[in-house]
Amino acid sequence: MLTSLGANVSAAYLIAAFTLACPEMPSAPTDAVPKPALELAYAPNGEMLPPTNYREWIYLSSGVDMSYTAKPADMTMFDNVFVNPDAYKSFVRTGTWPDKTMIVLETREARNKGSISQHGHFQGTNLMGLEVHVKDTSRFPGQWAFFDFASPTSNGTLFPPSASCYSCHRAHGAVDTTFVQFYPTLLPVAQSKGTLSPEFVKESGAAQ
Amino acid sequence: MLTSLGANVSAAYLIAAFTLACPEMPSAPTDAVPKPALELAYAPNGEMLPPTNYREWIYLSSGVDMSYTAKPADMTMFDNVFVNPDAYKSFVRTGTWPDKTMIVLETREARNKGSISQHGHFQGTNLMGLEVHVKDTSRFPGQWAFFDFASPTSNGTLFPPSASCYSCHRAHGAVDTTFVQFYPTLLPVAQSKGTLSPEFVKESGAAQ
Repeated sequence: MLTSLGANVSAAYLIAAFTLACPEMPSAPTDAVPKPALELAYAPNGEMLPPTNYREWIYLSSGVDMSYTAKPADMTMFDNVFVNPDAYKSFVRTGTWPDKTMIVLETREARNKGSISQHGHFQGTNLMGLEVHVKDTSRFPGQWAFFDFASPTSNGTLFPPSASCYSCHRAHGAVDTTFVQFYPTLLPVAQSKGTLSPEFVKESGAAQ
Repeated sequence: MLTSLGANVSAAYLIAAFTLACPEMPSAPTDAVPKPALELAYAPNGEMLPPTNYREWIYLSSGVDMSYTAKPADMTMFDNVFVNPDAYKSFVRTGTWPDKTMIVLETREARNKGSISQHGHFQGTNLMGLEVHVKDTSRFPGQWAFFDFASPTSNGTLFPPSASCYSCHRAHGAVDTTFVQFYPTLLPVAQSKGTLSPEFVKESGAAQ
């Protein structure tokens, strides 16, 4: 029990699954618990330094086997989304994201029939992927950028502006190119503040 | 899209599902983001006051359709678990829970085929249940107690010591009667600190 599942999953698959998923991620490193605020940090070559303590940020939501294409997932995985606390506080106040927002998506192994759980799935210790969606208006022409992290301790590689995540988030993001439609405590905030994007309102029929 | 699912679910079912699940929950109200530390608070009749800002505490994990009995879930639901930040910090340092630990379990509707998600499930705005597992050594003879909240704003009702959650958590909890085996970032801490319960080590074959 509680043994590793990740060893059975090829790195190539993970990269493909992660990229196809075109998901969602974090911004300005502020720390909820042990440390004071961090600054968004990049390496000299433009890579992003890893968000080491994002698990202590604000949790937004989880999904299981979500796919934005007609092809279902090949294996069961969870995704968990976190945001830096300063950006969260600003969103609750305004219904949208401030500069230096950093949304982190981690993909994590799903396990079943472990310990006393006989059905369904719970999350295991193997991290399968990590991506960041960051709003840094002075750095990125489109304000937001996506980074992919090969591991939680390696630097993040910028997705080029031609990557499908950008166009997908612009076309379908409920608020400021982010998928607030999947964050159950923030969607009502955006609705009440009137900050849903026209694209999302039209697509979903949501009241604005 | 994004319409309510909860209206289709009977209250009786939810109570049954929640109780059968015998899950896991929070303690000493400290706040990660907007407010300073809270105190664990009870009403004069012994009910627990609701943990109003637990979504800003530390996230531990999520599961989907987990069941501790041979009967699978009748419908797809997520569970999300949070803990008060002070208890989390203490656990990271020591591998076990301090007094005034408060673990919150929320059960939340699972939705599929919403917005651009064509497969899998994401979490909706309907909260289906809320329970707390609290360590308050001066108040409860067994140190820990479980409370059930009919809504996020109503007071919590104490599960009597004869309820199956107590015996189940004592028999199977990885650390101090809590299901750390389902919290992927805390299980390695307990393993490294040598705080796994003898019952769990025997049941799981985990290295201690």
